[in-house]
Amino acid sequence: MSAENVSISVIRRLPRYYRYLSTLKKNGVVRISSGELAAHMQLTASQIRHDLNCFGGFGQQGYGYNVSQLASEIEKILYLDNHIDTIIIGIGNLGRALSSFLFDSKGISIIGLFDKSNCEIMESNPSLSIMPMTELDSFCKEKKPKLAILCIPGGHAQSVAEHLSGLGIKGFWNFSQTELVLDEKTATVENVHLIDSIMTLSYNVNTMIGGKEE
Amino acid sequence: MSAENVSISVIRRLPRYYRYLSTLKKNGVVRISSGELAAHMQLTASQIRHDLNCFGGFGQQGYGYNVSQLASEIEKILYLDNHIDTIIIGIGNLGRALSSFLFDSKGISIIGLFDKSNCEIMESNPSLSIMPMTELDSFCKEKKPKLAILCIPGGHAQSVAEHLSGLGIKGFWNFSQTELVLDEKTATVENVHLIDSIMTLSYNVNTMIGGKEE
Repeated sequence: MSAENVSISVIRRLPRYYRYLSTLKKNGVVRISSGELAAHMQLTASQIRHDLNCFGGFGQQGYGYNVSQLASEIEKILYLDNHIDTIIIGIGNLGRALSSFLFDSKGISIIGLFDKSNCEIMESNPSLSIMPMTELDSFCKEKKPKLAILCIPGGHAQSVAEHLSGLGIKGFWNFSQTELVLDEKTATVENVHLIDSIMTLSYNVNTMIGGKEE
Repeated sequence: MSAENVSISVIRRLPRYYRYLSTLKKNGVVRISSGELAAHMQLTASQIRHDLNCFGGFGQQGYGYNVSQLASEIEKILYLDNHIDTIIIGIGNLGRALSSFLFDSKGISIIGLFDKSNCEIMESNPSLSIMPMTELDSFCKEKKPKLAILCIPGGHAQSVAEHLSGLGIKGFWNFSQTELVLDEKTATVENVHLIDSIMTLSYNVNTMIGGKEE
């Protein structure tokens, strides 16, 4: 299965297919047409056929897609059967939440938690202790994690990311409310700007209820 | 200041401008050209002029933008000087994290936390107790919150959202890993699919390190 030359916008839609197919599978659905899949995903049937054709296509004319087979193919394409060793930097509420959230997540294996404050044991995951930042370098040299989740204030994020990049981290899931600028050849960044999302929503709600005029 | 007929893609960029301008302001920067703003935001100068012109434009030829004035204008456009009464449904780790994250956030005021488990006091915000779901209806009828943050499992999200919509909730910040289908005329939804984001990142990292071949 090769995913070379597949556009990032197709890749970005695959987790959504995967999520939806997993729900169907859990509900005992065996097959689904591209039309039904499209209706649920608010895409067109031809978009869906195009997306899945990028990887060779798994549908059969007049039959549709085998839910279980398609889910497992997407799993392979997204490397979800592989586990990327991951560390979290900054173990406040958000870091803790993400650690729990990813605890049994496919494709990701949390192997270290770091915070500037002192060591303590994670209640939700007692097998992981929180290490001080002073142990970061030796940990990375020994365990070679490839992905880092940044839950630290924006002011520190760029310098921490550069340092981690030097220690072999290839991917950054960035919750630090700042844009990271890193060499694309050596690192890939996925920014999650929660504040932008809630501001957009609150703008829409204000517009709907007539803002201050109400 | 009117923001009518402004496209949602412009609105979506405003929080980013606001974030960046707030940092500049904190660092004592008084003015900035559209070119400098563009370089930092990875947009073109003409895109920036276009975006800000939608609201009447605040730049001055040869002078650039007054950082503080522009930030405060965007604040008004995004209704950040208004507070939307907001409730959080589902107070696991993520609900707690978002409650802390939004505690002093502009434009949002968290007034209630609900969970199916028993009442308890939030450590991070002792003024808010966690209420049982059985109190949701009476709370909404009395306090009339307009925005709900859903941190509940996907299986329940749609029915809870429909119920909340009937109780007057106009906006949903949806972390439930499912797509909500609600009447656009009565409710606006902002989905945050964290799992899609981490899957995209892990795909990119796997591609970079050669996936399983390494």
